Amino acid sequence: MSSMTGNKIKISVFGQSHSKGIGVVIDGLPAGKKIDMEKVLKFMDRRAPGKNSLSTPRKESDTPEILSGLVNGNTCGAPLCMVIYNENQHSADYSNIIDTPRPSHADYSAYIKHNGFNDISGGGHFSGRLTAPLCFAGAICMQFLEDMGIEIQAHIQKIKGVYDDKIDYVNIGKWNTAEKSFPVINDEKGKLMIEEIEKAGADGDSVGGVIECAVTGVKAGFGEPMFDGIENRLAKNIFGIPAVKGIEFGNGFEVADLYGSENNDEFCIADGKIKTKTNNSGGINGGITNGMPIVFRTAIKPTPSIFKEQESVSLEKMTEEKLQIKGRHDPCIVQRAVPVVEAVTAITILDILM
Amino acid sequence: MSSMTGNKIKISVFGQSHSKGIGVVIDGLPAGKKIDMEKVLKFMDRRAPGKNSLSTPRKESDTPEILSGLVNGNTCGAPLCMVIYNENQHSADYSNIIDTPRPSHADYSAYIKHNGFNDISGGGHFSGRLTAPLCFAGAICMQFLEDMGIEIQAHIQKIKGVYDDKIDYVNIGKWNTAEKSFPVINDEKGKLMIEEIEKAGADGDSVGGVIECAVTGVKAGFGEPMFDGIENRLAKNIFGIPAVKGIEFGNGFEVADLYGSENNDEFCIADGKIKTKTNNSGGINGGITNGMPIVFRTAIKPTPSIFKEQESVSLEKMTEEKLQIKGRHDPCIVQRAVPVVEAVTAITILDILM
Amino acid sequence: MSSMTGNKIKISVFGQSHSKGIGVVIDGLPAGKKIDMEKVLKFMDRRAPGKNSLSTPRKESDTPEILSGLVNGNTCGAPLCMVIYNENQHSADYSNIIDTPRPSHADYSAYIKHNGFNDISGGGHFSGRLTAPLCFAGAICMQFLEDMGIEIQAHIQKIKGVYDDKIDYVNIGKWNTAEKSFPVINDEKGKLMIEEIEKAGADGDSVGGVIECAVTGVKAGFGEPMFDGIENRLAKNIFGIPAVKGIEFGNGFEVADLYGSENNDEFCIADGKIKTKTNNSGGINGGITNGMPIVFRTAIKPTPSIFKEQESVSLEKMTEEKLQIKGRHDPCIVQRAVPVVEAVTAITILDILM
Amino acid sequence: MSSMTGNKIKISVFGQSHSKGIGVVIDGLPAGKKIDMEKVLKFMDRRAPGKNSLSTPRKESDTPEILSGLVNGNTCGAPLCMVIYNENQHSADYSNIIDTPRPSHADYSAYIKHNGFNDISGGGHFSGRLTAPLCFAGAICMQFLEDMGIEIQAHIQKIKGVYDDKIDYVNIGKWNTAEKSFPVINDEKGKLMIEEIEKAGADGDSVGGVIECAVTGVKAGFGEPMFDGIENRLAKNIFGIPAVKGIEFGNGFEVADLYGSENNDEFCIADGKIKTKTNNSGGINGGITNGMPIVFRTAIKPTPSIFKEQESVSLEKMTEEKLQIKGRHDPCIVQRAVPVVEAVTAITILDILM
Repeated sequence: MSSMTGNKIKISVFGQSHSKGIGVVIDGLPAGKKIDMEKVLKFMDRRAPGKNSLSTPRKESDTPEILSGLVNGNTCGAPLCMVIYNENQHSADYSNIIDTPRPSHADYSAYIKHNGFNDISGGGHFSGRLTAPLCFAGAICMQFLEDMGIEIQAHIQKIKGVYDDKIDYVNIGKWNTAEKSFPVINDEKGKLMIEEIEKAGADGDSVGGVIECAVTGVKAGFGEPMFDGIENRLAKNIFGIPAVKGIEFGNGFEVADLYGSENNDEFCIADGKIKTKTNNSGGINGGITNGMPIVFRTAIKPTPSIFKEQESVSLEKMTEEKLQIKGRHDPCIVQRAVPVVEAVTAITILDILM
Repeated sequence: MSSMTGNKIKISVFGQSHSKGIGVVIDGLPAGKKIDMEKVLKFMDRRAPGKNSLSTPRKESDTPEILSGLVNGNTCGAPLCMVIYNENQHSADYSNIIDTPRPSHADYSAYIKHNGFNDISGGGHFSGRLTAPLCFAGAICMQFLEDMGIEIQAHIQKIKGVYDDKIDYVNIGKWNTAEKSFPVINDEKGKLMIEEIEKAGADGDSVGGVIECAVTGVKAGFGEPMFDGIENRLAKNIFGIPAVKGIEFGNGFEVADLYGSENNDEFCIADGKIKTKTNNSGGINGGITNGMPIVFRTAIKPTPSIFKEQESVSLEKMTEEKLQIKGRHDPCIVQRAVPVVEAVTAITILDILM
Repeated sequence: MSSMTGNKIKISVFGQSHSKGIGVVIDGLPAGKKIDMEKVLKFMDRRAPGKNSLSTPRKESDTPEILSGLVNGNTCGAPLCMVIYNENQHSADYSNIIDTPRPSHADYSAYIKHNGFNDISGGGHFSGRLTAPLCFAGAICMQFLEDMGIEIQAHIQKIKGVYDDKIDYVNIGKWNTAEKSFPVINDEKGKLMIEEIEKAGADGDSVGGVIECAVTGVKAGFGEPMFDGIENRLAKNIFGIPAVKGIEFGNGFEVADLYGSENNDEFCIADGKIKTKTNNSGGINGGITNGMPIVFRTAIKPTPSIFKEQESVSLEKMTEEKLQIKGRHDPCIVQRAVPVVEAVTAITILDILM
Repeated sequence: MSSMTGNKIKISVFGQSHSKGIGVVIDGLPAGKKIDMEKVLKFMDRRAPGKNSLSTPRKESDTPEILSGLVNGNTCGAPLCMVIYNENQHSADYSNIIDTPRPSHADYSAYIKHNGFNDISGGGHFSGRLTAPLCFAGAICMQFLEDMGIEIQAHIQKIKGVYDDKIDYVNIGKWNTAEKSFPVINDEKGKLMIEEIEKAGADGDSVGGVIECAVTGVKAGFGEPMFDGIENRLAKNIFGIPAVKGIEFGNGFEVADLYGSENNDEFCIADGKIKTKTNNSGGINGGITNGMPIVFRTAIKPTPSIFKEQESVSLEKMTEEKLQIKGRHDPCIVQRAVPVVEAVTAITILDILM
């Protein structure tokens, strides 16, 4: 099994980059919630391509069509199915890579798994385009979470050595990245990041980055020990986003350089409530929320589609071959992945809270 | 749900640090495999405490008793249940922390989740002691994997700024860490790490570290797209190990500082097979193995049980309180967590390959 | 969770009777199988309404549209999504039952579950129309099973006291019910059943029946003990068909009147293979196939939509009310449920065999 | 996977008839519930053998030992593990059936599945003895259900043509079968059933029967559409009880002989609440509870272990052989299966309600 996940809120993602349609079924949404579709579209727009000079000029018409699950705009308890019909396909661009897999793409591993019957066009089911349904599902889930006083926000923490402002994990505040075309907290840092992206793009190359996400408003006591904790379930789903190669919570990998006395979050009483003075744990102890903000970071690798000539092989001839990737590809997808991280987080957290 | 995981090979872990017994049920093992119990015990011994000056002097008698699932030493297709009876319990040591949660432990979050009925003694179900059944299950699974030509090995990559030797992800080689009391590749680096641990211990403090794990021998084509890929499933299970705060595959978080042209793994033909020249992807593309070694690192936080006085609160009185942790605690658990990472990896990989 | 099922072959059914579309996502199909779409359509046609005097005159245009998962007619490993767009909707017919639930329909239980936000039109997600996607998924799975030499066939065993011919569970033979408009083995018995249906229809009433299904070609040794046996999994899925109220395997409920010496299936050697002389076990012992045909029967209740005036209540006024159901309803759905039983069986068996 | 089931309340059953121990892990029980262990033992005693002339003279010492999950008699949120150590094993009795499978047992199907490595002694993991852990788990779950005002009771509905009193599915009443050594409502009918059992036993034969179970106190609105309804989930788990060959809800298979006007449950107002005048649906519509009692029946086949000589085969020699089963076997297990049906129902219903 593969493109389904969840326990109470289950999602089933379908589609290939160039199939007739892509979409998602969301099963388990409580009935009676009025969905603000404007807000959903606005959210989805954040990941849409073609918005600025950094992303692909091709225009996706990502208009989601609801096939089921809503009656008069309200959830009705039946699975909600949404489809986006694919229009602007350039399958011809992929003719050369059927036999010559692109380095660090899923071309080769999928070829082996599917005996050469995998859909190579546009990356098939592995395409970043499949994150559009994830954003749709996440935007829906987020509206349920908002009713519970829960807020999810993400920002680019780093691109090619350039860091955004450091976050205070105890007081998350408002980042307003949802309103920005380039989702950083400090726009000056954002400009430097954009410079790096443009430089890489000019070289026919690409860059990756780190996205940081915070969830506020989740009370203490959610999550399960061992294999069904918050970290387990977020990790399982976040790795469902193409190009993710790592996830860390709170201090993450930095813990390897700290003493326990530095890393431990001491308790205090604030506003009549039990809190921790620091939040190096990222809001989770023993897999269970402690009431502090949930904070994690995820590593996004550089887009593997680069225009520099690369070494590959002919699968049929078993010979080494040069590969020149054609078509239109973003030199960086980190900025577009920011809402995707928020979306997958929303899907996961709602599933946990139900 | 919580302490069960797996699709084809399912494990169910039970027990608390001071309950009558701890153990695991392994469901789905193929019948007819002769289990080498000596080898299992030897593997379990690697995580056992009291082996050297670095770990707790208390002696666990971790003798696993098989209740079911084996007939004449062979798996018989029925669930294999193993129990370790707890003997040496000092519940009195935990009397003060019932009301005063230890910073960065699960004491508080579990207290809230379980309305104060969580078992606090020795950390209850959240105790590192529960990794003994994981090691047992992993050692069993590893024997099945060995028959398939698959090898799993882990080493301490870093403790408090001291790095072990860098790994060549293309040619993993033999690390021999299973034979060492301190599982590093370069023993000189190990000595420096031990110095750091001892220094922290002398200060009543603790240190964390990073464990690196490699799986060799898995053919290309295993794993599923999106939510059931190798990364998703390893991450879900690895976060089941106490103190894990991050996981990264291949280049991991370093991808944020690399160009696509640096991070991409170009293909080549070697020994008549398709390989990649580098293995920055850690053996996985699109969630599916590409035939190269699977490589990941996981961050282990410093033991939260330190002897330095810390700030906590009284849950009953809602007042701030000083906390002095008593008992016996390791200044570092990273070295003992190395076989645990191997074990959980074995459980996960066998589940995926079945 | 609800309308998803399966372990390796997962299906996710969506849609309401009068939503924009209904359909199914099939996740986990092996890549590289050429789907015979003609055959799929022919199979779906068997459950389609309006074929004869017994079923509703309304014409469903059940043309399945493939959104994803096929490339050049071959499965490609990506989830296969199929949609049927709803056209001929008479939502007005349901205006009176929003407040006055129909006896033995899901109107009331769904109203309570979904706080009155359930989609009542045409039965919403509970409509028999949702069996069209099940038939589609089943027809696809059946093509994979045929490659393995497995055949699934069902017939009406009984309607209102009239029995079809008795089956020899050891030698199933060919029933050819797929080619008949009324799927019985003995057409004479079929005529008598039709008379009963027409009589009930003339009275504004309805009748139920029993469907018998046989699966041949499954080798011994499939299925799991206890909760994941063939019976468990078939039962779980077969109860997903609307109106099913019972399932029994082999001799089923008749076992209560038999001696062990009558019910036991003695072994013999036939054609050089181990077989049983009788097949009262329906091909399953201990949840695991024994190589004999899998045989089960399932009870289908009379269509609850009858035209006779019935007692109901006003949910808003909490008063007892008379109810007169309008619209077009079949006096019997058993004949249309026959391919649905085959379809769900195919989905389940393929999932088990993968 | 096999001997694990459940979503929120998960159970993992382990053990073979003659392994060192058998038992169950229950994962997901809410913390803070004081378990009445006396009551649990009393419940388990209902299925214990050797109580009267009808069941095996061998004495099981079914003393459950709690390994984890309870602190001072309260659930603590950690998985509850219970073990029963096996003592009185007569493995020698099974020497002849290793090669000569017993008709209608799992001997042959398990032999094929497990390549001859299945544990044949006492039936191994397929033994009725494994229902002891199920009863333990059910008795625990029942105490949680009682707190919610939910009651589960079962009785023998039929043995070899002798029926117990007919139940009024609208007003279930108190059956008091838990207090009886032979769990029928009408003891006179019970005597007739016992006569049938004794007669079969005297002939070296066995008889089966039907168990009827009712659940009262579950409010309307629980359960999910399609594959996760009450019927689906009860059926999946009830078929986990050895010897079960059928399950039917409400009118069950009788629906095939009824008109819709006879089978439909008309609504009424009673005691200010919405009820149905009849309960032919067995409390479930569209998979969801309607507030009426949940009623189902399950068919238990005659014990396949009979003392009459039977035809079998030699698996090694591939020759037909006579088989004479030795040892001690009940001529009827229906009476002992009654608490097992209640137990599995309790496990399932608690899982659904959580």
